[in-house]
Amino acid sequence: MAKTFIADCKEGQAVTDFFLVRAREIRRRRNGEPFLSLVLGDRTGELPAVMWEGFEGAAAALREGDIVKVQAAVGTFQGEPQLQVQRIRAAAAEDGVDLEDFLPRSPRDPAEAVGALTAATGRLADPHLRALLEDLWADAAFVRAFGDAPAARTLHHAYLGGLAEHTASVVALCETIAGHYPGVDRDLLVASAILHDVGKLQELQWHGAFEYTDGGRLLGHIVQGALFVEERLKKYPDFPPTRRDQLLHIILCHHGELEWGSPVTPKTLEGLILHHVENLDGKVNQFRAFAREHRDPGRPAWTTYIRALERHLYLGPAEAEGGAGPAPPPAADP
Amino acid sequence: MAKTFIADCKEGQAVTDFFLVRAREIRRRRNGEPFLSLVLGDRTGELPAVMWEGFEGAAAALREGDIVKVQAAVGTFQGEPQLQVQRIRAAAAEDGVDLEDFLPRSPRDPAEAVGALTAATGRLADPHLRALLEDLWADAAFVRAFGDAPAARTLHHAYLGGLAEHTASVVALCETIAGHYPGVDRDLLVASAILHDVGKLQELQWHGAFEYTDGGRLLGHIVQGALFVEERLKKYPDFPPTRRDQLLHIILCHHGELEWGSPVTPKTLEGLILHHVENLDGKVNQFRAFAREHRDPGRPAWTTYIRALERHLYLGPAEAEGGAGPAPPPAADP
Amino acid sequence: MAKTFIADCKEGQAVTDFFLVRAREIRRRRNGEPFLSLVLGDRTGELPAVMWEGFEGAAAALREGDIVKVQAAVGTFQGEPQLQVQRIRAAAAEDGVDLEDFLPRSPRDPAEAVGALTAATGRLADPHLRALLEDLWADAAFVRAFGDAPAARTLHHAYLGGLAEHTASVVALCETIAGHYPGVDRDLLVASAILHDVGKLQELQWHGAFEYTDGGRLLGHIVQGALFVEERLKKYPDFPPTRRDQLLHIILCHHGELEWGSPVTPKTLEGLILHHVENLDGKVNQFRAFAREHRDPGRPAWTTYIRALERHLYLGPAEAEGGAGPAPPPAADP
Amino acid sequence: MAKTFIADCKEGQAVTDFFLVRAREIRRRRNGEPFLSLVLGDRTGELPAVMWEGFEGAAAALREGDIVKVQAAVGTFQGEPQLQVQRIRAAAAEDGVDLEDFLPRSPRDPAEAVGALTAATGRLADPHLRALLEDLWADAAFVRAFGDAPAARTLHHAYLGGLAEHTASVVALCETIAGHYPGVDRDLLVASAILHDVGKLQELQWHGAFEYTDGGRLLGHIVQGALFVEERLKKYPDFPPTRRDQLLHIILCHHGELEWGSPVTPKTLEGLILHHVENLDGKVNQFRAFAREHRDPGRPAWTTYIRALERHLYLGPAEAEGGAGPAPPPAADP
Amino acid sequence: MAKTFIADCKEGQAVTDFFLVRAREIRRRRNGEPFLSLVLGDRTGELPAVMWEGFEGAAAALREGDIVKVQAAVGTFQGEPQLQVQRIRAAAAEDGVDLEDFLPRSPRDPAEAVGALTAATGRLADPHLRALLEDLWADAAFVRAFGDAPAARTLHHAYLGGLAEHTASVVALCETIAGHYPGVDRDLLVASAILHDVGKLQELQWHGAFEYTDGGRLLGHIVQGALFVEERLKKYPDFPPTRRDQLLHIILCHHGELEWGSPVTPKTLEGLILHHVENLDGKVNQFRAFAREHRDPGRPAWTTYIRALERHLYLGPAEAEGGAGPAPPPAADP
Amino acid sequence: MAKTFIADCKEGQAVTDFFLVRAREIRRRRNGEPFLSLVLGDRTGELPAVMWEGFEGAAAALREGDIVKVQAAVGTFQGEPQLQVQRIRAAAAEDGVDLEDFLPRSPRDPAEAVGALTAATGRLADPHLRALLEDLWADAAFVRAFGDAPAARTLHHAYLGGLAEHTASVVALCETIAGHYPGVDRDLLVASAILHDVGKLQELQWHGAFEYTDGGRLLGHIVQGALFVEERLKKYPDFPPTRRDQLLHIILCHHGELEWGSPVTPKTLEGLILHHVENLDGKVNQFRAFAREHRDPGRPAWTTYIRALERHLYLGPAEAEGGAGPAPPPAADP
Repeated sequence: MAKTFIADCKEGQAVTDFFLVRAREIRRRRNGEPFLSLVLGDRTGELPAVMWEGFEGAAAALREGDIVKVQAAVGTFQGEPQLQVQRIRAAAAEDGVDLEDFLPRSPRDPAEAVGALTAATGRLADPHLRALLEDLWADAAFVRAFGDAPAARTLHHAYLGGLAEHTASVVALCETIAGHYPGVDRDLLVASAILHDVGKLQELQWHGAFEYTDGGRLLGHIVQGALFVEERLKKYPDFPPTRRDQLLHIILCHHGELEWGSPVTPKTLEGLILHHVENLDGKVNQFRAFAREHRDPGRPAWTTYIRALERHLYLGPAEAEGGAGPAPPPAADP
Repeated sequence: MAKTFIADCKEGQAVTDFFLVRAREIRRRRNGEPFLSLVLGDRTGELPAVMWEGFEGAAAALREGDIVKVQAAVGTFQGEPQLQVQRIRAAAAEDGVDLEDFLPRSPRDPAEAVGALTAATGRLADPHLRALLEDLWADAAFVRAFGDAPAARTLHHAYLGGLAEHTASVVALCETIAGHYPGVDRDLLVASAILHDVGKLQELQWHGAFEYTDGGRLLGHIVQGALFVEERLKKYPDFPPTRRDQLLHIILCHHGELEWGSPVTPKTLEGLILHHVENLDGKVNQFRAFAREHRDPGRPAWTTYIRALERHLYLGPAEAEGGAGPAPPPAADP
Repeated sequence: MAKTFIADCKEGQAVTDFFLVRAREIRRRRNGEPFLSLVLGDRTGELPAVMWEGFEGAAAALREGDIVKVQAAVGTFQGEPQLQVQRIRAAAAEDGVDLEDFLPRSPRDPAEAVGALTAATGRLADPHLRALLEDLWADAAFVRAFGDAPAARTLHHAYLGGLAEHTASVVALCETIAGHYPGVDRDLLVASAILHDVGKLQELQWHGAFEYTDGGRLLGHIVQGALFVEERLKKYPDFPPTRRDQLLHIILCHHGELEWGSPVTPKTLEGLILHHVENLDGKVNQFRAFAREHRDPGRPAWTTYIRALERHLYLGPAEAEGGAGPAPPPAADP
Repeated sequence: MAKTFIADCKEGQAVTDFFLVRAREIRRRRNGEPFLSLVLGDRTGELPAVMWEGFEGAAAALREGDIVKVQAAVGTFQGEPQLQVQRIRAAAAEDGVDLEDFLPRSPRDPAEAVGALTAATGRLADPHLRALLEDLWADAAFVRAFGDAPAARTLHHAYLGGLAEHTASVVALCETIAGHYPGVDRDLLVASAILHDVGKLQELQWHGAFEYTDGGRLLGHIVQGALFVEERLKKYPDFPPTRRDQLLHIILCHHGELEWGSPVTPKTLEGLILHHVENLDGKVNQFRAFAREHRDPGRPAWTTYIRALERHLYLGPAEAEGGAGPAPPPAADP
Repeated sequence: MAKTFIADCKEGQAVTDFFLVRAREIRRRRNGEPFLSLVLGDRTGELPAVMWEGFEGAAAALREGDIVKVQAAVGTFQGEPQLQVQRIRAAAAEDGVDLEDFLPRSPRDPAEAVGALTAATGRLADPHLRALLEDLWADAAFVRAFGDAPAARTLHHAYLGGLAEHTASVVALCETIAGHYPGVDRDLLVASAILHDVGKLQELQWHGAFEYTDGGRLLGHIVQGALFVEERLKKYPDFPPTRRDQLLHIILCHHGELEWGSPVTPKTLEGLILHHVENLDGKVNQFRAFAREHRDPGRPAWTTYIRALERHLYLGPAEAEGGAGPAPPPAADP
Repeated sequence: MAKTFIADCKEGQAVTDFFLVRAREIRRRRNGEPFLSLVLGDRTGELPAVMWEGFEGAAAALREGDIVKVQAAVGTFQGEPQLQVQRIRAAAAEDGVDLEDFLPRSPRDPAEAVGALTAATGRLADPHLRALLEDLWADAAFVRAFGDAPAARTLHHAYLGGLAEHTASVVALCETIAGHYPGVDRDLLVASAILHDVGKLQELQWHGAFEYTDGGRLLGHIVQGALFVEERLKKYPDFPPTRRDQLLHIILCHHGELEWGSPVTPKTLEGLILHHVENLDGKVNQFRAFAREHRDPGRPAWTTYIRALERHLYLGPAEAEGGAGPAPPPAADP
């Protein structure tokens, strides 16, 4: 039976399906009796939900990030849909739920993004860098993880496939820029672009909800990426030591400034370029996510005030008039 | 008679030609008698010069930035060439010296850069923006100044033609990026890229030596650019007010942060992109200038310590071995 | 019929009058039914209000900043008055409400403040600066807007007439200081003081609630002020260019530091003085507003902790004992 | 015999008089023999001086800050006067030199400034504050020190009498401002203004050259001022404790921010005002000193680049044309 | 009758005892009637409490920090105990409540900590420093206050006895370090360590709840400590002035940086060491308090995100498995 | 023949021995002829040297950091000894010079420091950490490098043996602190202390002069240390992954803040402690080096102004009177 997606829930409808628990809280009625307040979601969006009674057993075990099966009616509250839950239970292995249904996902097919990166690898002239990368793309477990991973827990490209989308975008821009400026070591720039965020695979976990791993919190993706590349280099005793230093340097310096978490600042032209391109790509993605999620209803050419950026963003008059928007939501992707 | 360029001066040669005074100081011999110490240059480089006697009359009137005619011998001092000046006088109008011979100049032909900008203007679909810009390119005085101006007094693109070179580079990258990301207002981005540094024409003077004008110091090129565009917009009473605000916003925000001199931070996607692209282009040019001028002779894969960046720059092993360099000097341009 | 002001509402009273909607929210009772929660205000203060039923039609159209007519009883809640609303509708043009009744307003009569500025204009010896300013005071639309405008959306002088009050205060102090220090260009300082915040007229809107305009968010009052003055200067082809640069410089630098939004820092003695005086006047006004609004009831010699200032403010023992307070509320003004 | 002042030395003249050693260095001639290089000064200015031989005995004992008697000829070097010293010796007690002749001194008579402060004391209504201050002005040693002291080692009012000049200027402005804003505790503000920098008497020494004392370096004038006032308060067991806290608070907070050396930030209206007024007065004095000392000879409307302010200062066209200057040199005072 | 402690309250139990009011708020039921919501605590912990009716008289007079007598039942809300209050009144003097029962207290016996400090005093060789400190330990009122005081309102050692615990810990480490590094003035370091936070006695009040005094907010414990020591030094006219400056310097500089509230930075080896040791001790105590109070229930090897530190803290796998914890709660002390 | 050390050179003596070239410059006499100006040193100090003629051949090949053999007379210049060089040549392999004679060296015997670290290793209870470290101490090449290396190029412990001295000092303090605070993972803290700066072996080179390696500039010792430990861990497949993360975390976080070069901030109690202890040890060593090298001759209780610290340091009255100094020079060690 086809899943009922959040985006399709309509008032008055009865729903029995699986959703991801994005928030969970016990609150209390005025009469002293508690009730369960949830936010349930899937890859198309999220809705508030309440369960007035009979939730004690289920609630004790529930965690944010769990997938649950609920039986509910779609009611309304303050003119917006709300799920009124009658029954709830945690999903079990035998339910065979497909994680992909529950998490936001890049509009770009990760296979396609990985294909673009493989193609860029094929355009490398440096045999050492090409061998290192071809070996990665031949590693099915790596490719699967790389295609699934988000690029961040929040901030930018924070959805499944975000890492591949971000990496492919950065690589494409770097290939252009390598031709734009003379004197750039094209192979070094492109190979570094492919590997710059590879430590995200160790830093993050993305099964159920996006979260840092213990190692991610203790070491961070920048150093985890360097350790990962160093480990893969063991296979290549002839890899030139200078090349290794240049490559590791760019991974380490890609945040650009010490206070942004890089232990060294860019000292090579390629490190400088990668930092700026990577920053631009993250900022553009972030702008588009904010534009999508924080439109000011009272002033539709603008977002509400975004504390993280200390500003309102201007979406322009076309936006205000419902014209062609800047950024389709990732989950609107068929 | 063909000019003798600094780059061609050889030991033992007698030289009688015009040079630009880049530094000027009276120093004293141990016996109490003063002598004149100069740095003389042209577009190909610079040399130290000394004049032991007879300089009193000439020296009183000399200023840094003047062009002088000298009669000198090319001697050596500590193994490096030095001009030993016998006679000196300020250049006069009737000497017909060509300023172009004395100032560093972009390796890119400004006419070619302006041509690229005119072509980009022709690709604008927005009739208002295109009209505004076509009017500029039809203004011969503007085109001449725009083709001559440096992009900065120091820091990056600090040579004649630097403004046109920098602007054309930024515009080319913006055209690429407008295609790379959906939802970008291509015309707004490209027009803003063309105009973003137009205030440099008011901020700087570049006749003799690069210096800020009074207005440049008091108002700065960011606001001078906005005032200039506002002035040109008077011709177009139908120019849409929102368009004007978007365009002025990008000029004002292009430094990206308040502490870098922008009175507003980027609030539009196009402003965000232009800031990052402009920053990248300036930083790449600056890297290449530092690499050219601060090579560490004792460690040729590196520059000396560059205080402005708080780091050494790494030029790579090819550099160290005299391989293909990253950045030909602008004056090496035929 | 005379308006019933918020400051005069007494428990048990029935009220039928116009108020400004300062906040608006739908909240829900425990039984699942929503109610309308409002903050209603006028120039004398504000009160919480609730409407238990029958609000759906009205609520949908209500916006913060609207003026509404309500029929309500003054009840109490937790010992403080609360409006219990029975009927509500938006004010219509034919109601002829007087905006002045609804917005906080400077205790200083704007006509008096503008008069003081006109008088200061008359004391200018420089014919160019005097002509420029006399032309402004002869412009009735300008004078009306200047007398009405607040000086800020929040922070300081955030009430109608605040701009004129702040400007007149700064001008008076500048006239004193011009006599206190030798070598000050008195005319330049006073004229700049009059014009320093003139861009607020473009940056803000103050009809209903104080908000930034689109142009205000995109350009900011500092540059808008410079553009405005430049526009007025077109009338005076003989205005000395140096004088124009000095004047624009002070408008641009009056925030004192790049990170506070000025694109240039003060480079003239008059810019330096204006920055400090303007800052002092804003800070004093802000202190008095905080003192009025954040008195700590448990410790009346102090305010509560003010996050924006990272401190508590000390109002002194007289305050604690109900003695003569430092700052009468602006609306208490007859 | 009348002293020959530096400002009066003319080429060819023989001079036998006392001067202050402002700098002292042994340098070497090319032939290996050392010579003594000095800067000699008095309250009217300074001149370079050289002593070619016979200086060994004298030089060993000389310190910067000493007063010496020299026999010299006024020669020229690079077109500027230079003292060619034949004999030199340290001044002795019996020479009866008057320190006043050697140190820069405020153009304002300290007795007049102290008189203004005494008068302001007499206008205080608060008997406790008035008693505390009257007791100070009755203390001849205090008055003498207060009238002599500079306000700083460098930066602003760094000349004899600078503390009294600065304090009197701040007090005069505070009296004006206390009338300008309602709700200001006038007596507290004025008394604090008088005492705010009293710790400079402990922090600095000014006999010979301006220098920090050991206590000044270890404790700083802000805390030294608080300790001094606390000590004087011992005489007044009835001084209200709250008044003492308010007074000490303003002394402690007058630098305005922790990073500027105040251990607390202003929490009272009077502390806020004093900080801003004191800052303004220091900055204006500093501007005038920089304007006097760093005029750019090649561009007389400007100073040279002033690293401490990260800017050039603009002195205006009148300055450039030799018109009425902004700030007469303090030593020009008769 | 033995006090019933919060830590011992069990569901269903009736409680009639004294507690400290840590928070107090009137909230409203949906039917419009208010109720009293409290947090009641003692030295073993705290519980939420509600009083549905009859609280009006009592509530008006209640303040945070008061001790009240309540008659209540221990119910549960959301699975956690909650006090349902039937009667409440403020404690009176004749109730003879023991403050010690209500405030968190250091696990270390203050008498023992003070004893350690007295012993360290006895090990001082410098007679001046030893006399100054012995006089303090002979002052019963001082010893009592020093043994009771917390070291801070929040942040670290924020419990009764915290000042003595922190001071004794810092002194012990300083005695070790004085032996570890040659050239340290042991007596100066140890005496300064004993006195470094003595100003906390003036800065804080700890009767009922921890709060800053008026003087504490206006002057701060750093300057209050210096004033206190200066006052005690009056007894010792022979105390060497240099010693006094060294001692006051360390008290003033112990926060290490101006922006952390020290008016001077460390200029002596002993000041440098004390700053680092004091900082370490505070940070370790703070880490342990955060670890105890912010364990993440969903990820027990970690705390939740701690905004003040901008990080999660890692408690390690032993913690996660309920192994030996890093820090026993202070109230667990018998 | 015993080496003549710099500290023993006396006026009039003839010297023929080896020295390290610490600075090298060609300068010119007034007659236009160049001369060679050197600073020559060994582990006991350094002296200026001049060579008037015949140096051209030798000078071309000389580099800072070279060891040279000179034949010279000890003359004086300005009352201080100066080497007047007659002959100079680079040292050759067959000269058998002992590097130890030329570089500053820790006063602590590295073998003794390494012995202390080995002993601390033996006190570890955790078998995994002990095995990892014992394996290092069994590696003769590692031990030799660890015993020789400086801890920094400049700043602190910048002398041969500095790394071992610093590490042993930090470890000793950590062992004390592990006993001082309950709940500290002693083995983790001590093992991390031993390894925290191990990346210095890759970051620095110390043969001739202390300099960064290419890898040191590109990766930095923090990441190089993590890579080194990771490499050594390969030998121990059973090393617990959590232990590895904890250990690498401390190495990465030991600079304490992102802007000081750590890619992660301390999240464990042991990381927090190590950072503070390591910082203290470096700062104490730096204080002592500054105190030794920057004594102000005109004010011997103080150093001159130290720009890196933005302060003068106070050495105390004993210092001023030539009493027992705080820090014997490392080279004074027999």
